[in-house]
Amino acid sequence: MSNVVCEAYQRIRGLAHRTPVVTSATLDRESGNRVFLKCENFQRAGAFKFRGACNAIVQLTPDERRRGVVTHSSGNHAQALALAASLNGVACRVVMPTNAPEIKRRATAGYGAEIIPCEPTLAARESTAARVVAETGAILIPPYDDDRIIAGAGTAALELLEDVPDLDAILTPVGGGGLVSGTALAAQTVAQKPSRNGHPACEESWARRPCYPRVIGCEPAGADDAYRSLKSGERITNATPRTIADGLRTTLGVRNFDIIRRHVADIALVTEEEIIEAMRFIWERVKIIIEPSSAVAVAPVLFRKLNLAGQKIGIILSGGNVDVSEFFGLLRAKI
Amino acid sequence: MSNVVCEAYQRIRGLAHRTPVVTSATLDRESGNRVFLKCENFQRAGAFKFRGACNAIVQLTPDERRRGVVTHSSGNHAQALALAASLNGVACRVVMPTNAPEIKRRATAGYGAEIIPCEPTLAARESTAARVVAETGAILIPPYDDDRIIAGAGTAALELLEDVPDLDAILTPVGGGGLVSGTALAAQTVAQKPSRNGHPACEESWARRPCYPRVIGCEPAGADDAYRSLKSGERITNATPRTIADGLRTTLGVRNFDIIRRHVADIALVTEEEIIEAMRFIWERVKIIIEPSSAVAVAPVLFRKLNLAGQKIGIILSGGNVDVSEFFGLLRAKI
Repeated sequence: MSNVVCEAYQRIRGLAHRTPVVTSATLDRESGNRVFLKCENFQRAGAFKFRGACNAIVQLTPDERRRGVVTHSSGNHAQALALAASLNGVACRVVMPTNAPEIKRRATAGYGAEIIPCEPTLAARESTAARVVAETGAILIPPYDDDRIIAGAGTAALELLEDVPDLDAILTPVGGGGLVSGTALAAQTVAQKPSRNGHPACEESWARRPCYPRVIGCEPAGADDAYRSLKSGERITNATPRTIADGLRTTLGVRNFDIIRRHVADIALVTEEEIIEAMRFIWERVKIIIEPSSAVAVAPVLFRKLNLAGQKIGIILSGGNVDVSEFFGLLRAKI
Repeated sequence: MSNVVCEAYQRIRGLAHRTPVVTSATLDRESGNRVFLKCENFQRAGAFKFRGACNAIVQLTPDERRRGVVTHSSGNHAQALALAASLNGVACRVVMPTNAPEIKRRATAGYGAEIIPCEPTLAARESTAARVVAETGAILIPPYDDDRIIAGAGTAALELLEDVPDLDAILTPVGGGGLVSGTALAAQTVAQKPSRNGHPACEESWARRPCYPRVIGCEPAGADDAYRSLKSGERITNATPRTIADGLRTTLGVRNFDIIRRHVADIALVTEEEIIEAMRFIWERVKIIIEPSSAVAVAPVLFRKLNLAGQKIGIILSGGNVDVSEFFGLLRAKI
């Protein structure tokens, strides 16, 4: 069972949390499936991103560790890298657009990273990061288009498959594609006999060739670059993604698309309305905080958008970093 | 180890969820304690109330089962009793004030209970329930001032003490007093040697007499009937409780106060501001949904209001039923 995801798992063991797998009788009933939620919202820094960041940091050479790391992100990757670096005694710089929410800037700085402000454009982010690399010799750790990040992200699915070995499918959200591509690599570590409800093609071919749980990416219809890329066979990038799932507005990565093209069974699209309804369902019925990006992978199951009736489905809940200040503002107004 | 709580535990085993115990490095750091959160927000129907309701229902005689049960409540007890009755094939009627939130009426009806509306006064609730009893012969299951309900509520602490046997103290919110009194009875099932940080009086007397984890009730300052009752030695009832913790606006029960008086070490008071801050801390850092009543038991630890530095503290998170429709309304407005 040698695989880059297994190697990453050995590396980050004890650093990343082994997150719980949660089930919900109500979700099973609504979806017509048996659903297993891998709770990366409970991961350190609140998202699966910590796994990849950790896997990258611990592979740095002593010289690279001295030089420190840099990334550009205003999202979960920034916080994850800041924390992973801090825990490993590595300096971390994060290039962050000046319009990033104050809450995210504070969280990242709270993990000990130096925040370097830049204009709120992708060009400015990349050029500022390049300047930091040139000036300081810091090592750039990209948020998703990176083999270490992909392998680290896959460790969540690896753990899920250890806990529930006979899943028929695993669903993840797709933004840059780090999580779905890592999950696809993880699925291949588990050669499994199809369950009674396995897909027929798989059952037929089992005697000849073991099959793996299908990996299905889930994307907002308003940021459907992975969907269109998989359909067309070419990496297409969205000019203006429009979705409430702030973690999924990123552009599909090159390495990520290459893995998706070869190993991901399908990309499911969901509407903004479905994202919010799925998020509310998880909050109200499962009583855990998930961010909109996580809900993107719940919606296709909850609303039976895929032909998966009766199957055992794993869902990676990617994170739980959502700004609840407005909600608590309303609550405070009541006292 | 014979105790009414142990007996209740045997009765409801397999019907109630064995809820997880969750820890948080951030909460430990902020509080200066080792804190163990017993997650009754993950209990069936979203609150510890299911335990007591279940313990009452399964003790009904065949004749009583045929007659069905009735209660008056617009809160968690209504939903809990409706679900427990439904699972046991017992008819359930719930007297609910006409101003009860639509979301609670729907949830209770969703579990199969018949809703009987009444005027929104305690007198109308009680007289309507009495009328239902007289007309139908249904068995009244009160929400907290009842031995079966108290023993059932205590099973949460019993499980917590099985998982973490050497707790120095257990904190619970106090409304009618069902949870805190049940917890106090549960604590007595565990004779334990004081830990290194145990209270000195307990260490001294250990040779003579085993000691138990102290049980501390937590109350909003705006609904402090248990606090004032414990201090004065007489059951005092609040005319107009004012707190955002809607589950704790009830009047302290007679049986409950009798147990509190004898077995509860202290009642801690918290402000409305502290309740909201503690709730937000749990949402943001632990990523689980708790209702304001649960936060009442978190606040004294988080804000170090008690002299418990360095101790092992259990907190019963009583429930997770909070109306998030305004939050999702805001979210929907963004799409």
